[in-house]
Amino acid sequence: METKKSWAIGVDIGGTTIKCALISEHGDVKGVRRSPTEANLGREKMLNNIKNAINEVLVENELRLHDIEGIGFGTPGLIVDGVLEGNPNLPAWNGTPIAAEMKARFDVPCFVANDVTIATFAEFIYGAGKGAKNLVMFAVGTGIGGGLVINGQLFEGSNGMAGEIGHVTVVPDGRVCGCGQKGCLEAYSSTLAINAMTREYLTSMRGKSSKIYEAVGGDLSKVTPRIVYDCAKEGDEVGLAVNETVCTYLAVAIGGLINTLNPDTIILGGGVMEAGEIIIGNIKKKLPLYSHFMMRERCRLVPALLGENAGVTGCGALVFRNLGRI
Amino acid sequence: METKKSWAIGVDIGGTTIKCALISEHGDVKGVRRSPTEANLGREKMLNNIKNAINEVLVENELRLHDIEGIGFGTPGLIVDGVLEGNPNLPAWNGTPIAAEMKARFDVPCFVANDVTIATFAEFIYGAGKGAKNLVMFAVGTGIGGGLVINGQLFEGSNGMAGEIGHVTVVPDGRVCGCGQKGCLEAYSSTLAINAMTREYLTSMRGKSSKIYEAVGGDLSKVTPRIVYDCAKEGDEVGLAVNETVCTYLAVAIGGLINTLNPDTIILGGGVMEAGEIIIGNIKKKLPLYSHFMMRERCRLVPALLGENAGVTGCGALVFRNLGRI
Repeated sequence: METKKSWAIGVDIGGTTIKCALISEHGDVKGVRRSPTEANLGREKMLNNIKNAINEVLVENELRLHDIEGIGFGTPGLIVDGVLEGNPNLPAWNGTPIAAEMKARFDVPCFVANDVTIATFAEFIYGAGKGAKNLVMFAVGTGIGGGLVINGQLFEGSNGMAGEIGHVTVVPDGRVCGCGQKGCLEAYSSTLAINAMTREYLTSMRGKSSKIYEAVGGDLSKVTPRIVYDCAKEGDEVGLAVNETVCTYLAVAIGGLINTLNPDTIILGGGVMEAGEIIIGNIKKKLPLYSHFMMRERCRLVPALLGENAGVTGCGALVFRNLGRI
Repeated sequence: METKKSWAIGVDIGGTTIKCALISEHGDVKGVRRSPTEANLGREKMLNNIKNAINEVLVENELRLHDIEGIGFGTPGLIVDGVLEGNPNLPAWNGTPIAAEMKARFDVPCFVANDVTIATFAEFIYGAGKGAKNLVMFAVGTGIGGGLVINGQLFEGSNGMAGEIGHVTVVPDGRVCGCGQKGCLEAYSSTLAINAMTREYLTSMRGKSSKIYEAVGGDLSKVTPRIVYDCAKEGDEVGLAVNETVCTYLAVAIGGLINTLNPDTIILGGGVMEAGEIIIGNIKKKLPLYSHFMMRERCRLVPALLGENAGVTGCGALVFRNLGRI
């Protein structure tokens, strides 16, 4: 480390785990530390756990508070004008002005954004979106989140809530989504949707001819995207049928964004995308049905690069960007 | 006129008419002049007609070229990196670098953008979108075009093509669109779609109980959105059914944009929107099915204000904005 002043702290706050690390201006990640969120013990306990996590990263790396540039936080849920809202998995966390709370505890610059927004920013600065002018990232996991970079700047909308692409309607009056609405992208292409659709297929065919049924030993509660995609790659018909649905509606949503925003880059990340080419290749095949060729030909569709460190890396990048350093 | 140097020329190039006028920094419109485009006579003739139109506006207003700040052009089609492309109605016009061609003829600053982008900019600077930070305009006419303002700036995407919201898929594998794809918004909510759907209804019911059938004297080629909406307002069932479809898919598209961009303003303009509240009110009723309440509640849905002068006004505004005057 050339000078001590080259680090920020990134804090990725998940439903079960707080991940905390030192991040350099160049995206280096150092001293990753995981500790329990303990969201069930209430807001004060959570804030205290975050404070302790930050302090321990400082101690373990022999740094003092004045050695760091600032702290960036990423959290699930909508950040509405700086205050966390609408997070069904962390009810105790709703209403928390997290940057302000942490600034009061640490007195260094503190910044907060939605976790997918943060991961998008990390991919933009250090990963698959490097050099992009306009990009959209899809994080396809348990749910589906999105992030946008517009004209080279992280775009959060008029109230900090942009990027809820998991709840864009792809089938009017379609499958019921966890959000209570119908036909959302998340109801067709997320982990939860993949598991649910696979179970429906297996139940309707009594599971007799699917490798997936064998792979879970007949216990449908054990279905996961990994199992579904491993079987699809071996030619399993249920797996392939589920993938058709997953890719069709991702292509509808991606095509709509291409036509609307004329972006140069679309990044696909999140756990489901670990299946790789069987998804991305299929989406590329379907995109001509849902997008204008002149914009599609000028937009690259690429997998995310940063993997599980995208969160903390983006939290650090948020600090450096807000301080005008990158 | 206080000083002669306070005007730009706006040129709205349509498929049949060139509309040309003086525009002040404050959006005043003066000396509107219409002349034929004569697109069928080829590119050079069109460029010459545009040149003559500009010269005549100057002469009629006793101005010389050096009295104006610049000239702004709006045209249908995609402007790809400054060159007009993909305009099926003006084939002779494709491939024209219009701003460069006009700069060569007039030697004043020349700027060009898509006509809906231009109208959006006019509404943003002088009309229904005044003061907005992030807005999307839908121009619902023969086709459906769109324009975006992001972070207070006209947004044209990575190649100048953003805003093709008429071809966002709202029904996968749905009605065939004029663009050759299926299920585009334009196939459900444009003038062409309204006319086609109304004819289908009337044909399938043999037209016996619809006021629309009477209004066109049994000649289905005479169906227009005005007739359909006049009848719908009198309770005609066919008119109301068509409006349901028009509004449902506009709500799907608008809801998707609200969830994606978290804009503060959506503007609805274009000929179809002259029907007024029967459309906007119905869309507002449907939007909760297709958008997140926290973003929907923070986004106003308003009719366009500038009417038929939006085009030339926006062309002038484009000049003043590019010169850093507004």
